[in-house]
Amino acid sequence: MPSVSATGEGVLEAAEALASLMDKLGFESSVNKTAGNPVVRGEVNVGSERTVLMYNHYDVQPVDPESEWKFPPFSATIEEGKVYARGASDNKGTLMARLFGVKRLMDEGKLGVNVKFLFEGEEEIGSPHLADYVKGVAGELKSDGVLMEGSGLDAKGRPQIILGVKGILYVQIDAKGGSRDIHSSMASLVENPAIQLMKFLSSLVDENGKVTIKGFYDDVQKPDPLFDELLSKLDQDPAELMKSLGVNKLKLNDRESLLRALYAEPTFNVDGFISGYTGPGSKTIIPHSASAKIDFRLVPNQDPYKIFEALRERMQAFGMVAEIRNLGPEYAARTSPNSRLVRAMESSARRVYGMDPVIIPTSAGTQPMWVFTRIAGIPDAISAIGAGSSGSNAHAPNENISLENYYKAIDHTVEFLRDFAK
Amino acid sequence: MPSVSATGEGVLEAAEALASLMDKLGFESSVNKTAGNPVVRGEVNVGSERTVLMYNHYDVQPVDPESEWKFPPFSATIEEGKVYARGASDNKGTLMARLFGVKRLMDEGKLGVNVKFLFEGEEEIGSPHLADYVKGVAGELKSDGVLMEGSGLDAKGRPQIILGVKGILYVQIDAKGGSRDIHSSMASLVENPAIQLMKFLSSLVDENGKVTIKGFYDDVQKPDPLFDELLSKLDQDPAELMKSLGVNKLKLNDRESLLRALYAEPTFNVDGFISGYTGPGSKTIIPHSASAKIDFRLVPNQDPYKIFEALRERMQAFGMVAEIRNLGPEYAARTSPNSRLVRAMESSARRVYGMDPVIIPTSAGTQPMWVFTRIAGIPDAISAIGAGSSGSNAHAPNENISLENYYKAIDHTVEFLRDFAK
Repeated sequence: MPSVSATGEGVLEAAEALASLMDKLGFESSVNKTAGNPVVRGEVNVGSERTVLMYNHYDVQPVDPESEWKFPPFSATIEEGKVYARGASDNKGTLMARLFGVKRLMDEGKLGVNVKFLFEGEEEIGSPHLADYVKGVAGELKSDGVLMEGSGLDAKGRPQIILGVKGILYVQIDAKGGSRDIHSSMASLVENPAIQLMKFLSSLVDENGKVTIKGFYDDVQKPDPLFDELLSKLDQDPAELMKSLGVNKLKLNDRESLLRALYAEPTFNVDGFISGYTGPGSKTIIPHSASAKIDFRLVPNQDPYKIFEALRERMQAFGMVAEIRNLGPEYAARTSPNSRLVRAMESSARRVYGMDPVIIPTSAGTQPMWVFTRIAGIPDAISAIGAGSSGSNAHAPNENISLENYYKAIDHTVEFLRDFAK
Repeated sequence: MPSVSATGEGVLEAAEALASLMDKLGFESSVNKTAGNPVVRGEVNVGSERTVLMYNHYDVQPVDPESEWKFPPFSATIEEGKVYARGASDNKGTLMARLFGVKRLMDEGKLGVNVKFLFEGEEEIGSPHLADYVKGVAGELKSDGVLMEGSGLDAKGRPQIILGVKGILYVQIDAKGGSRDIHSSMASLVENPAIQLMKFLSSLVDENGKVTIKGFYDDVQKPDPLFDELLSKLDQDPAELMKSLGVNKLKLNDRESLLRALYAEPTFNVDGFISGYTGPGSKTIIPHSASAKIDFRLVPNQDPYKIFEALRERMQAFGMVAEIRNLGPEYAARTSPNSRLVRAMESSARRVYGMDPVIIPTSAGTQPMWVFTRIAGIPDAISAIGAGSSGSNAHAPNENISLENYYKAIDHTVEFLRDFAK
């Protein structure tokens, strides 16, 4: 069933079908309006003093290039023990495994914790309405922990438990010159917005790559021995990383600095820049405008709104005529490895997979964990239990999950709920 | 007759028609192959010890937007004393006025100097093959002075005599990162070619706008009292300049610094820059490439090849993986106000127009004068005698010249040749 949030194809039908399946399974479901695609929710209340919230998404990435698929992307064809379908891994397989895991315990009369489901339909387009939606219903989402999506099995087949995410501040700056492009012979007299914007952006980081915005590092969380210990246990081979990224060098090569930079330190990045003439050959103009998109990945306690304000002030002081917009503020989040949520996930993973899970202290990327921890006030949040693996081709043609991993994800859901109830 | 070098429309037919007209007028004409559009040449040898070379171009700009024309752009419709046509001002009107001026003196038996005509067909696309062509026939172009195009009447109706041009170095830099765009969570580990290129370009000018490339100013011509005197006489009103450029401030406001910066100092400019994601909204990537087009306007004695080499070395020392290309090297040129060429042009202009001409010591822009002065070894070169005025809409819809200005340009050609013969 298609549910492509980028185009809208099948999204509403998928939300209705999901809600109707959940009703059939015995969860009280609802399809909830947002300013965008609906949020599908469900709930089982067994009267426990503990509650888990499970977050997944029912929308998927577009299928293109469709010609590269072995089977029609919404046929869910099974071949050699694998289901091929757009969304099989990201995120419908995991969503289903969780529903059927809870259902199994319910049917056995052994569900020892209340479960709430929240399935959004806009994750693949950046969850633009999730925070607003959660703000409005925060009281109804009260739980002891939230289980996010985004985890799965690593390249060695080990289950991953991810204890946090970085935050982000995504900013667009549009610098303006005159009302039109001007002949470049006037370069000594007319300000060039491309040069101004380049100089401004270049000034935001020093020679060592440190961000120079006032107060940027002020709120950065002090070193945390538990986090550092987990970090030191991660295996991250620079050579393998380079291969997977398609680059032939990294800025940092010793293992410790590399891990620290990737997971523990905030970053600055330029995502895009355009100004003036960019076609073939030469055209001699002072462009009338220049636009850049930049992002800062943030660590716990950094506030994207506060940093945006400092950036805006810095830009005003710089004296460039420009508009600056905050396109995507998200906070970082981190959960302690000693939390009940993590301990239950760890012990259950060990039992189901017969090996130690990989505990990743934080993702280098961003997910809306903060919506649940900061807005809904849920104390702990992790990404864990995923039916996908490193060969699942998420976002690519021939997305798939193995049936074995799917059934293991159901088992893991069951065992996690047992351990969390204890 | 169309002759649009950007599209090729009518170019060869126009070259043939021009040559055949010149034959009819009594000039020995020839259509000469180049690696691009042909060069049309002609000659009258009256056995004088003095020779003038007249350079014009028979190609024109495209006509779009055609809907904004009052008359079909190649109809040459005459209304209220003006001829409307693409190319009327730039540059066919002036080209014709020169041919008919020489013809009049010839018919009267009073032509006192030899005249050579060189009309190219690629001026509107940057004269890509002119230098090579002239290199091959330099001996045949031997003259005492060259009359370029690009002059005309200023906003006050005064004839302009332009004694020089700036040179240019136009460079494209393509910086390369990995083999594809990479998720921006890797920003602490993977070099961002957009940031590198921005930092490199920003480093090319200091806080005062001075170019920091090694040796950039070494060859800059020492102050020249004659040039400075002409500069001081120019009327350049900052308010009017801002209005005509469509900007509400200039980098320099006092008249003297403004004139010096515009005409006597080299410049650095960014013409275009593109990297990464530039569509609507946000996409979090480290771009795999970044490209910039930059130009330096040069003053006499600066060598674009030498500066390109210094720039290339600077880039290598900077440590960025990038390709750098020299897209358009041109030398500056300047002729003394005391030269016979300028004095004859000045006295004849005064007689024909009944007022002092405006002597502009150099254009802030670029023209291939150096091809004639450096390659063909012709001692003096100026832009003067033009049928166009500030209301001629060159490069725009409704391009036109007044018949009065056209006839004056013929008279001016005649009188100039008389004075130059003396």
